[in-house]
Amino acid sequence: MRKVETVLIANRGEIALRVLRACRELGLRTVGIYSEADASLRHLSLCDRTICIGPAPAAKSYLDTELVLRAARLTQADAIHPGYGFLSENPTFARAVEEAGLVLIGPSSTIMRRMGDKIEAKRMMLAAGMPCLPGSDGPLPEDMDQASALGARIGYPLIVKAAGGGGGRGMRIVHTPADLRQAVQTAREEAIRAFGNGTLYGERFLTHPRHVEIQVMADQHGHAVWLGDRDCSVQRRHQKVIEEAPAYGIGRDEIARLGALCAATCLKIGYVGAGTFEFLYEDGAFYFIEMNTRIQVEHPVTEMVTGIDIVREQIRVAMGEPLSLTQADVRCDGHAIECRINAENPDTFMPGPGKVTRWLAPGGEGVRTDTHLYDGYVVPTHYDSLVAKLIVRGRSRNEAISKMRAALEETEVDGIPTTIPLHLHLMEDERFRAGDISVHYLEERDFSRNKKDSTHGAG
Amino acid sequence: MRKVETVLIANRGEIALRVLRACRELGLRTVGIYSEADASLRHLSLCDRTICIGPAPAAKSYLDTELVLRAARLTQADAIHPGYGFLSENPTFARAVEEAGLVLIGPSSTIMRRMGDKIEAKRMMLAAGMPCLPGSDGPLPEDMDQASALGARIGYPLIVKAAGGGGGRGMRIVHTPADLRQAVQTAREEAIRAFGNGTLYGERFLTHPRHVEIQVMADQHGHAVWLGDRDCSVQRRHQKVIEEAPAYGIGRDEIARLGALCAATCLKIGYVGAGTFEFLYEDGAFYFIEMNTRIQVEHPVTEMVTGIDIVREQIRVAMGEPLSLTQADVRCDGHAIECRINAENPDTFMPGPGKVTRWLAPGGEGVRTDTHLYDGYVVPTHYDSLVAKLIVRGRSRNEAISKMRAALEETEVDGIPTTIPLHLHLMEDERFRAGDISVHYLEERDFSRNKKDSTHGAG
Repeated sequence: MRKVETVLIANRGEIALRVLRACRELGLRTVGIYSEADASLRHLSLCDRTICIGPAPAAKSYLDTELVLRAARLTQADAIHPGYGFLSENPTFARAVEEAGLVLIGPSSTIMRRMGDKIEAKRMMLAAGMPCLPGSDGPLPEDMDQASALGARIGYPLIVKAAGGGGGRGMRIVHTPADLRQAVQTAREEAIRAFGNGTLYGERFLTHPRHVEIQVMADQHGHAVWLGDRDCSVQRRHQKVIEEAPAYGIGRDEIARLGALCAATCLKIGYVGAGTFEFLYEDGAFYFIEMNTRIQVEHPVTEMVTGIDIVREQIRVAMGEPLSLTQADVRCDGHAIECRINAENPDTFMPGPGKVTRWLAPGGEGVRTDTHLYDGYVVPTHYDSLVAKLIVRGRSRNEAISKMRAALEETEVDGIPTTIPLHLHLMEDERFRAGDISVHYLEERDFSRNKKDSTHGAG
Repeated sequence: MRKVETVLIANRGEIALRVLRACRELGLRTVGIYSEADASLRHLSLCDRTICIGPAPAAKSYLDTELVLRAARLTQADAIHPGYGFLSENPTFARAVEEAGLVLIGPSSTIMRRMGDKIEAKRMMLAAGMPCLPGSDGPLPEDMDQASALGARIGYPLIVKAAGGGGGRGMRIVHTPADLRQAVQTAREEAIRAFGNGTLYGERFLTHPRHVEIQVMADQHGHAVWLGDRDCSVQRRHQKVIEEAPAYGIGRDEIARLGALCAATCLKIGYVGAGTFEFLYEDGAFYFIEMNTRIQVEHPVTEMVTGIDIVREQIRVAMGEPLSLTQADVRCDGHAIECRINAENPDTFMPGPGKVTRWLAPGGEGVRTDTHLYDGYVVPTHYDSLVAKLIVRGRSRNEAISKMRAALEETEVDGIPTTIPLHLHLMEDERFRAGDISVHYLEERDFSRNKKDSTHGAG
């Protein structure tokens, strides 16, 4: 058991405030670090100590391991919470924290490094019996008979990709075995022209997958639990826009088997802390994509349906305490939705920093707001445009959608553009309401075209 | 089933906003009424229609049945939600609403009238098998032998009171049978001197009772459920200051028996809507005090532990819909605390109206704020000083206390005094933390004396 008295919060914005709240509730002292552009961040006024570690951009402050560690030494912090983004999944940072004799509120640098290597992670997951996307697991054979046999094993549709490439060149989606030969030939020629390397690999192609994930939490005493599932299929350019818990329409038995496997995998690979197993889900099957070794932006939807404070638990297990709950204590009740509110033009998604001249959060039954916004706060240009998370819980998905719509309408923001109008459109979209969505849903629907207004007024 | 499309909200402040939210989530149109002093109330900007019904004070607007009904006619409202206070428990108003052919979101005027008459209510409750405070149920016999026999039946300590009096005169607490004769004689002489009437009555005196209550909800189809229990012992001059759910330290089997009795009583007396059975609890026994035939200020603590939106359900059953849940669906999980934030000097409890120059609500996991405050809002002098309710939920009472303390510290209010400093003292008081409290607790502790500061700053 490591004695921790002071936690340095190595992040900014809403997640810094989220971590601060958990620390205060646990009676821990807090140190806030900030860049020169961030002196007016909300959480700083609530920290026991604050320290400016450098200028914007992040590379010169939040992303600089040495500056963060120096701040920790200076303030005699015992532990560091990295939040999400920035250094949170950087094994080199994690290693440096360990070597400095501090507690990283997260998994060990070793496991972080292994999970960060996608090939190694897939190998570990296959060994643990986790379902993965079938693929060539190496170069596609040049011999077309061998390639066909491999194709049959992977299944169709499949995708062939240039091993040395990217940007869509040397890439072909193959729908039937008959198309394989031609597709491989064209892709190889394209790859040679583009990258000077004709090596291809193949894997199963999912046409309309959903993004489904399992939240886990494991302690240093051989206990691991899974805290339910989430759907995060509403994405734009691989950025999640809306998250829900649970993943509606998927059999609870199926999810329970997957969840139990994830918890068991934590024990098998020696994972400690909060983590997320991410999957694609299509036609009744799950395929592991990656494991996130940190707290996630969308963790509140899980908190809303389980009543478990994940960050509090994350800090406790990092301090060496046993999990405060067993699997039997975990019960998901109702349905939660989170809308990420970005300071962006809701049509063009262009970031819109500036001064917030009015901020009025929604409230009431089943409504939670996680934000660092306040009247007069200036959203700086240098960072991620996420400024607030609106989370609601209803007894059913429909009830949650009604609550979210009312909460979005009640929210008042002046001075900066936000994505609230997009979320309002989504809450009224028939496909969203029916749950008929995949990771391509948001790009298939173009909400910007039929927009009546692009700003959200006071009312 | 009554078709309701438009609800008139016959109240102000935080409860008007609370009702508005539920209406919007149900897809109902809303009409906001307000007095001339209340034109800038938060909920009005979210109502479909608003109408000024008269000047302050309340007697000339919110309390005037005819003005409220006229506004309903003018705006073609089908239903009226009275909130709490004002006309919410006025059977004459309820009757007028019924006669106007409108739906009152509350019980019938008949049951409201019977419950408002404390003697009639006690008679009904005794008939339903509800535990009541033993008493003389009429004048104390003049004959001392008869009086002694009655005293023995009531039990000691008991209290004798002047039937025609008040203000503590003609009142004596009697601790043992030996003291009865002298106490009756003194009280009777005092009563004659003070009120010209020596009639006394007696009832059991509770020295350190807790205030415990049961939330019920019944529909028009013969279904009734109880939604758990609350403790509201922290009071000042019979005004609740802090409320909790559940009532800690009382056996769950005992509460379950009482809850089932309350639900059964609803069916027996034909009660429809949301209601609360209030009890005193001392030495393991409950004594019915009264039934509140309306939504209560403290309903959010029940919502936080059950996940049930009581106001939504209240509106639904008033429209004739069946309850959306059975008793088996009601599960209380965790512990919730509500602090009533009043615009008052926390030492003197003198109301402090004025302009709110800064308002920043707390947020995050397990934190709910119900308030009509916003930056620039002017708290008028004419009404109740309740300006915000802070509600938190933790997995245990201790966790909820930690969360409440952090949430109180995070709240920023400038421009008006608030009772936040009092609540902070309470959260740190050993007796409160130990749950060692009765309805006299707050008056026994004088928190105003050892106060370090009486305003709550930013941070």
